[in-house]
Amino acid sequence: MGANERLAAGNRAALDAAGVFSLNFLASPGAGKTSLVERTVSALSSRLRVAVIDGDIATSLDADRAAAAGATAVQINTGGECHLDAVMLQGALETLRLPEIDLLIVENVGNLVCPVNFALGTHKSVLVASIPEGDDKPYKYPGAYRGVDALVINKIDLLPYVPFDMDFFRRGVTALNPGLVTFPLSCRTGEGLDGWLEWVVAQVDVAQTSGFARASLEARATG
Amino acid sequence: MGANERLAAGNRAALDAAGVFSLNFLASPGAGKTSLVERTVSALSSRLRVAVIDGDIATSLDADRAAAAGATAVQINTGGECHLDAVMLQGALETLRLPEIDLLIVENVGNLVCPVNFALGTHKSVLVASIPEGDDKPYKYPGAYRGVDALVINKIDLLPYVPFDMDFFRRGVTALNPGLVTFPLSCRTGEGLDGWLEWVVAQVDVAQTSGFARASLEARATG
Repeated sequence: MGANERLAAGNRAALDAAGVFSLNFLASPGAGKTSLVERTVSALSSRLRVAVIDGDIATSLDADRAAAAGATAVQINTGGECHLDAVMLQGALETLRLPEIDLLIVENVGNLVCPVNFALGTHKSVLVASIPEGDDKPYKYPGAYRGVDALVINKIDLLPYVPFDMDFFRRGVTALNPGLVTFPLSCRTGEGLDGWLEWVVAQVDVAQTSGFARASLEARATG
Repeated sequence: MGANERLAAGNRAALDAAGVFSLNFLASPGAGKTSLVERTVSALSSRLRVAVIDGDIATSLDADRAAAAGATAVQINTGGECHLDAVMLQGALETLRLPEIDLLIVENVGNLVCPVNFALGTHKSVLVASIPEGDDKPYKYPGAYRGVDALVINKIDLLPYVPFDMDFFRRGVTALNPGLVTFPLSCRTGEGLDGWLEWVVAQVDVAQTSGFARASLEARATG
């Protein structure tokens, strides 16, 4: 893990130097990471230059969807690996023109366990949960909920059709990650997307007006 | 992996010798493994003596549900591990009175990638897919679909509310695992459960009338 963390720090430095703000999307298979990528890219691509790096065991289905929505998209096939790691991200970053990107979304392999243990160098992590997965997931996969910076609760349009106790779910989340910013929404109907999109834009704004400026100063001071 | 496979063979021999038929349930988090365990135990516990071994990162929520449904239930907490392995199952088997069990269901950690690579010694593997996960999962997680003996497609009651192309899904399954026996059903409404339950009972019958008899003869011949 030492080597992975060094490579992740290198990825972060490359992103900072180029002024690219980056998100790492984590979720179970089928929670809706790719649908959220599509919605986010479609809504923001007139304001921000967005790139997507998709991690999957196999196929380029997800990168194809991200590209169709308007992003520059790169597919990583892990060839069986259950998570992305920093060296895979490094390889994908080398294929992109970073100075031409404002927002990079990395879509990790669908898995609530393994990706948590491998830093990529991205700025913030977003967990995409979904209503039909059930309200007990924070209790059963605590690592995934503990380490993230934002939580999207997707597929709220299915709330009338499945048993899901939102209070029980939220108590589990709060115990692991107090104050976690949470966006209940539906990628299918669009309900709740505005709050999520505002958060993403605000993250990019803050990074571009403060973080990257500092990173660039530091790079000049040491370089 | 050599050591895991030797331990898995030992688990199989112990199950055979005691006349226990065993299933390994695999799925994404939230596809409905535990609901299927509950339904199966409730329906069959008057005819068969059922035990359940539940693998989870944390909590005993699943074993509690299996026990409430009428099974002898053992919880394995993997403490962060993303899959069960043969040594974990061996430890759990030692806590059960195997000769008093007809059917053992092992509920693996919710994960479509890692459990596939670790044999446990169980007789057959069942993949639990679910409609809201989406129809592209066979294409994106081929290993999970390739290695199993039966496929349950859970949450068919949600078909009216989510986009899911059953033909596209089935083409993906057939390419990976031709002729795979498949049970579309809903653990919530009960629709389609009869076919699944008949299959489970038939597996136990076949094993008890042929496989275990042979295993026992072989054990006597070599013992």
